[in-house]
Amino acid sequence: MIVAMQEKATEEQIDAVIDAMVDSGVNVHRTTGAYQTILAGVGPTANVELRKFELLPGVLYVHRITAPYKLAGRAFRPEGTQVEFANGVKVGGDHVHVMAGPCSIETREQMFETAKRVKAAGGAFLRGGAFKPRSSPYAFQGLGIPGLELMREAADAHGLLTVSEVMEIAQIEPMLPLVDCFQVGARNMQNFNLLRELGQMRKPVLLKRGIAATIEELLLSSEYIMSGGNYDVILCERGIRTYETSTRNTMDISAIPVLKKLSHLPVVADPSHGTGRRDMVAPMAKAAVAAGADAILVEVHPNADKAASDAAQTLYLDQFEKLVGELRLIATAVGRSF
Amino acid sequence: MIVAMQEKATEEQIDAVIDAMVDSGVNVHRTTGAYQTILAGVGPTANVELRKFELLPGVLYVHRITAPYKLAGRAFRPEGTQVEFANGVKVGGDHVHVMAGPCSIETREQMFETAKRVKAAGGAFLRGGAFKPRSSPYAFQGLGIPGLELMREAADAHGLLTVSEVMEIAQIEPMLPLVDCFQVGARNMQNFNLLRELGQMRKPVLLKRGIAATIEELLLSSEYIMSGGNYDVILCERGIRTYETSTRNTMDISAIPVLKKLSHLPVVADPSHGTGRRDMVAPMAKAAVAAGADAILVEVHPNADKAASDAAQTLYLDQFEKLVGELRLIATAVGRSF
Amino acid sequence: MIVAMQEKATEEQIDAVIDAMVDSGVNVHRTTGAYQTILAGVGPTANVELRKFELLPGVLYVHRITAPYKLAGRAFRPEGTQVEFANGVKVGGDHVHVMAGPCSIETREQMFETAKRVKAAGGAFLRGGAFKPRSSPYAFQGLGIPGLELMREAADAHGLLTVSEVMEIAQIEPMLPLVDCFQVGARNMQNFNLLRELGQMRKPVLLKRGIAATIEELLLSSEYIMSGGNYDVILCERGIRTYETSTRNTMDISAIPVLKKLSHLPVVADPSHGTGRRDMVAPMAKAAVAAGADAILVEVHPNADKAASDAAQTLYLDQFEKLVGELRLIATAVGRSF
Amino acid sequence: MIVAMQEKATEEQIDAVIDAMVDSGVNVHRTTGAYQTILAGVGPTANVELRKFELLPGVLYVHRITAPYKLAGRAFRPEGTQVEFANGVKVGGDHVHVMAGPCSIETREQMFETAKRVKAAGGAFLRGGAFKPRSSPYAFQGLGIPGLELMREAADAHGLLTVSEVMEIAQIEPMLPLVDCFQVGARNMQNFNLLRELGQMRKPVLLKRGIAATIEELLLSSEYIMSGGNYDVILCERGIRTYETSTRNTMDISAIPVLKKLSHLPVVADPSHGTGRRDMVAPMAKAAVAAGADAILVEVHPNADKAASDAAQTLYLDQFEKLVGELRLIATAVGRSF
Repeated sequence: MIVAMQEKATEEQIDAVIDAMVDSGVNVHRTTGAYQTILAGVGPTANVELRKFELLPGVLYVHRITAPYKLAGRAFRPEGTQVEFANGVKVGGDHVHVMAGPCSIETREQMFETAKRVKAAGGAFLRGGAFKPRSSPYAFQGLGIPGLELMREAADAHGLLTVSEVMEIAQIEPMLPLVDCFQVGARNMQNFNLLRELGQMRKPVLLKRGIAATIEELLLSSEYIMSGGNYDVILCERGIRTYETSTRNTMDISAIPVLKKLSHLPVVADPSHGTGRRDMVAPMAKAAVAAGADAILVEVHPNADKAASDAAQTLYLDQFEKLVGELRLIATAVGRSF
Repeated sequence: MIVAMQEKATEEQIDAVIDAMVDSGVNVHRTTGAYQTILAGVGPTANVELRKFELLPGVLYVHRITAPYKLAGRAFRPEGTQVEFANGVKVGGDHVHVMAGPCSIETREQMFETAKRVKAAGGAFLRGGAFKPRSSPYAFQGLGIPGLELMREAADAHGLLTVSEVMEIAQIEPMLPLVDCFQVGARNMQNFNLLRELGQMRKPVLLKRGIAATIEELLLSSEYIMSGGNYDVILCERGIRTYETSTRNTMDISAIPVLKKLSHLPVVADPSHGTGRRDMVAPMAKAAVAAGADAILVEVHPNADKAASDAAQTLYLDQFEKLVGELRLIATAVGRSF
Repeated sequence: MIVAMQEKATEEQIDAVIDAMVDSGVNVHRTTGAYQTILAGVGPTANVELRKFELLPGVLYVHRITAPYKLAGRAFRPEGTQVEFANGVKVGGDHVHVMAGPCSIETREQMFETAKRVKAAGGAFLRGGAFKPRSSPYAFQGLGIPGLELMREAADAHGLLTVSEVMEIAQIEPMLPLVDCFQVGARNMQNFNLLRELGQMRKPVLLKRGIAATIEELLLSSEYIMSGGNYDVILCERGIRTYETSTRNTMDISAIPVLKKLSHLPVVADPSHGTGRRDMVAPMAKAAVAAGADAILVEVHPNADKAASDAAQTLYLDQFEKLVGELRLIATAVGRSF
Repeated sequence: MIVAMQEKATEEQIDAVIDAMVDSGVNVHRTTGAYQTILAGVGPTANVELRKFELLPGVLYVHRITAPYKLAGRAFRPEGTQVEFANGVKVGGDHVHVMAGPCSIETREQMFETAKRVKAAGGAFLRGGAFKPRSSPYAFQGLGIPGLELMREAADAHGLLTVSEVMEIAQIEPMLPLVDCFQVGARNMQNFNLLRELGQMRKPVLLKRGIAATIEELLLSSEYIMSGGNYDVILCERGIRTYETSTRNTMDISAIPVLKKLSHLPVVADPSHGTGRRDMVAPMAKAAVAAGADAILVEVHPNADKAASDAAQTLYLDQFEKLVGELRLIATAVGRSF
């Protein structure tokens, strides 16, 4: 940490800051300039709350000089991480993947029809939600574990992997045989108890960025999972909240190249939640692949308009097939296979 | 709901929208103007996803015409709700209350010293956190239930009520005898499973606004608790995320009068989280009372700089006592007792 | 306009709202439902301040039902606008164009070298700033009109069009012979006096989105220019301000397809200002073309690191040439020529 | 400036960064730690673009260690600035002032009636706008200089000072005899040409914060005026743009104490623009005074509902008089006179 003192800081103020830094367990190097004194704190600052130094008299700025994450940082694995699944599919390499399925698992027909079409289009993952706590207690709340069994069956019948959201620690155990990848939703990105448990698993985790989370906070959350020994984390950009209301969220496409630079983890883009509008899914999916996304996560449904949830942002299967064809061209244009 | 068609919408497009509205279970009234056709949908629209109508060809705008909440709306109880506690303290009436205590419960001495001073200053509630999932797995994680027992003892010794955050459904049961008010943190504002369970309790809930939640979303979450029969909900403004970085969050003081207008529920302000800086707590606490807050929730600690968490935003007890004196003057100036 | 009354609105309140609407010059249609009364106002509402109706007693919501812009709306020219320049170049058609040059015009060598390379790479426009009011009064303030003469010469020598920012009405006249396209910067997007004057010109205007402007506000500003008779407006997305600080601004790629849907005007993307970082320009330029941008506006400089302004976001000419090659592939992948 | 290198930065990378720093004119002090090298740049860094160092290979973070403003900083005048007007009124001292008047100057009757009531209530300043460029070319555009003459007359008749917005350099000269304080609007906060001219004047300037401006940017703009020798700058918080839509803008009350801490300049609050709703003006005005504002700027009109502009946020004169009475109590409660 670096503490920059104000020009008129007194010697007493400087000494008080040094004492506070030493109290926090860091060694202090002092540089006294003609105008300004700089204090560099070296040592284990990860758990030091930097904000409190800003309040000390005579302090101008306090800055961090080490990244708050290690395992998630690009330097940890400069070559990049490829998350490998049981069937050999790897996310994070040359190949751009598609993960598709309905927001909510509803019926056997829905899942089998979707699985067939996703596979035929070249997709590798079937997605679907089983736990759907809704704002109205009378609305559809999801099929739960029986829904995941349906999805497992449909995926197996067509050689697909499964990905589904886990919302509570108690769901991890029963989900283990049914999903190939746990998804952590935006609202749980900082549910540290859940992240810690997932860090104990040896199964990939797709971690969504919170609706108001910074890129650094997303990486800190991934670090939390990795610190438990589970290095198979896939990051996901799905839109952030801004003042603009034309789209449900503002999809931060620039987060994709920024994450690829700062971290070695694969990055997935979710244009369905990113825009909230079916007619914007295709252009944003293409933009995401052009910007370097390793996979696209998209909501599709055989009868999109009647979907039990997220209907407005769900693609029809025909639209999905057309989109996949377009994504193949974009992937090729940026030197990726598809 | 109101669907405004584009000027050049065709008769086929209009018919298709009417069909979709009828399919959703609403009755449609059509007004055909010289330039534009308006379709009003009347009936049970609470569970209708309005966004999907925006995507139909020929549609210009889709608007809601009923508030998405009923129980939380001012019209439900025009006279306002007073949440009454076992000892007769009421939040939401003429009296402005103070809720104070450390971010984390740490030791018996800390809690008893704090309780004594909070009571002496005129506070009615002792606050303290027992569950502290932290970004570092090596950091202090809170004392858990034994911590809450400490707080209960300290509060009882000084005639104070207790308020503490509940983070998981499993914590509700053991917390019941130890807290007088459950606090739901900003990250759990939309944890609908937790809200549903709290709706089954008959104990007040202090519901914090999420860091990126709109005022409408906060009211929808309060509705979720109330729909279970627990009407004793206290709303809390604690800062939202904006582009400004001088303060940790931007405390939305205007949310206080807006909530008081839209809803009958009491409103509490948390200037500690709202600003993240000890030196800004006092001015913002005063602003909140001036704007109509029913109580102030503030972090205090006998040794603020050494607090196990949130040190930078925690007041020393002397500062707290000074602040309470100032708040008393402001409360009087706006015609409230204190 | 639609005014939705509260469930418990009284007949007096409803009458008062009707009177206020009539006073504003609109005809009122009333629908009295079992629960709620709806008032539809028909007529010239463009200049009616809707917000003031929200404050009338008994009012729940007030909604607009006509778009606040006409000339800029897609319905005005469903086939889309192509802005045609003197040399036959058209922005807004099949072809994706590149506009490139330094932030500031500095020297003859700089402009000729840049023009040569931009032309060779397939670019059609040379950009460069002549007026550079800077936060420090001692910093470089731009070359002014002599700079634009330099740019004109360099562009003519290589068959390029010129685009440059106009900051004040007094600059329009001397700029007329020197630029082929006026650029309005983000800070002037709502400088209505300037927009009105540009509406009197018969020369294309590239209008940048303000750093905190909504898409609707951008379209309203374009309407302002068009209402003067100048229909050759090109819209430009250049990043908005959000809470995320990894990039200088958050480039709202979704604004591109949204603008293309709402309006008939061409849309240009500026990844240099959109990201503020040289290393993010290429991925975001590719994303913009994939999402449907009609042109890319990019800062390049023969000696990017020494650029007098915006050095951090300026590409070297080699990087630019590589990027143009990549954009050609993306354009082809989305069915455009380049 | 401080450059923190990555842990694995090579000696070549470090040397390249040092060279670039020296090129920018700063002296470099190097600290080589076991894990990380830190480079401190000392010297004239005000005009150095720090962002470009972030892009150099091996760099982790680049931080500023001196405030980017000097004249506006609290250290320049620790005792605080009081802006004194011709009649002896001082803004920035113990006394809290009120500045009130209509958004637009419309008629002689309107201005005289307003002036009489503002004076009677204890206000010191009459405000009113003369230049009103509006989004519709057919809407009222303001009375211009004749309007300011009306305001001057009304103010003189009642012993008030005048404040009005200047939008262009050409307006300064004719406004000089008519206004006692120039107001710079939010959209012009970074119109550096205008600020430079105002810096040459010897008349106070009320500088409004831009709708998406940070507190630091506001201080930089005030520095721009002061660097011309005009030290009589009054800062104004008037609401920022966030994702919340219940209010027109989100009034950042915390900006008031933050500005008072960072700067010596007086701070005014504008709750009319800050909220955009008449019913929220009073609570937010009270909050602003409680938080330390030196004056309140508020829109009032004898016939608020018929105001030519900003009707929804304009107070009736009766409401204004009631508010002033309440503000007097709050000012007293925070130890100020009124």
